[in-house]
Amino acid sequence: MPDRAEFFDEPSDTREQLIQAAFRALCEHGYSNLTLEKIGSEFEKSTSLVYHHYEGKNALLLDLLEYLLEQYEAGIPLSDRDPAAQLHELVTAVFSVRNTAGFDRALVELRAQATHDEEFRSLFGRTDDLIRTQLAQIIETGVEDGTFADVDPEQTAAFIHVTLVGAHTIRATSAGDSVPAARDELEEYLDDHLVQ
Amino acid sequence: MPDRAEFFDEPSDTREQLIQAAFRALCEHGYSNLTLEKIGSEFEKSTSLVYHHYEGKNALLLDLLEYLLEQYEAGIPLSDRDPAAQLHELVTAVFSVRNTAGFDRALVELRAQATHDEEFRSLFGRTDDLIRTQLAQIIETGVEDGTFADVDPEQTAAFIHVTLVGAHTIRATSAGDSVPAARDELEEYLDDHLVQ
Repeated sequence: MPDRAEFFDEPSDTREQLIQAAFRALCEHGYSNLTLEKIGSEFEKSTSLVYHHYEGKNALLLDLLEYLLEQYEAGIPLSDRDPAAQLHELVTAVFSVRNTAGFDRALVELRAQATHDEEFRSLFGRTDDLIRTQLAQIIETGVEDGTFADVDPEQTAAFIHVTLVGAHTIRATSAGDSVPAARDELEEYLDDHLVQ
Repeated sequence: MPDRAEFFDEPSDTREQLIQAAFRALCEHGYSNLTLEKIGSEFEKSTSLVYHHYEGKNALLLDLLEYLLEQYEAGIPLSDRDPAAQLHELVTAVFSVRNTAGFDRALVELRAQATHDEEFRSLFGRTDDLIRTQLAQIIETGVEDGTFADVDPEQTAAFIHVTLVGAHTIRATSAGDSVPAARDELEEYLDDHLVQ
């Protein structure tokens, strides 16, 4: 189970405490087996507060995704660094097998809810847009300052993004060990295609 | 809902009839809302036969995945054609938005079961291995006959495979319309990197 500090600061209010409890319970039990009761048992205060704040596990999980998105947005650094290093850092962050297997699996289960639930679909749509926009901005900066070749930033970003989602999905759902090879090829593609 | 003829021949026995009924019900209702009863109502013979053959919906869905894998294996053509055309055909098949949105979404939901169910994990592992092996064989043939540059077939296949899984996942779960741009970039990558 990932350490809280990897993702979160010390919780500042009841919402953050509940969200962090939901995160811990989700990593441990997975989406299908998760209940508000299990989330309550990860919560330091009275379990009944969980029921008071959220009408069901989906409402709490949507708030967790919203919170992760806010944290991610707040953590995007100003682009004052080398675009090639920024791209490499983003790829490394997605491909690193940290102590987060439970969270990886839980995210794949949450994304699957987006196949039939409009609120999950909208949240994953926003997350995907944010990551693609971030990638496109890094690439555009690199094209403008001559670090990168004169590629189409949106098209290249859309492509890198599908590789990241694909690698994450396969790692969480398949017994194969081919993801490191895919990462090597992605790095070669970036070196050959982008970096001047 | 996809037409049965797109995926299946006329069913030859009760197992095939049940599997095709499960496929239709899965496309219509999605994984979470699927029950043996709903599968039974898609079945031409007595509904009780569904319960007689399968102990639960997961057993029937695993048999459906096994059957799809058998069909896919049987349909892999002998590699007597141009490797570049074969690759292009495989990419086109994955990226085409046919009348299969229900099936696309259902497959993402089934894959999510692999995060916590060993049997689903093993089946998706075999499917992923099969597609990667097929890709690697096409690439190896192209390297040997000089159609393709001297690339690493396994590494290139692993990379193409993550792009296919990523595109499929995003299309089924995200409101974004970036998948066609990712496909354009994949085609450019194949043209630049592979084709001599």
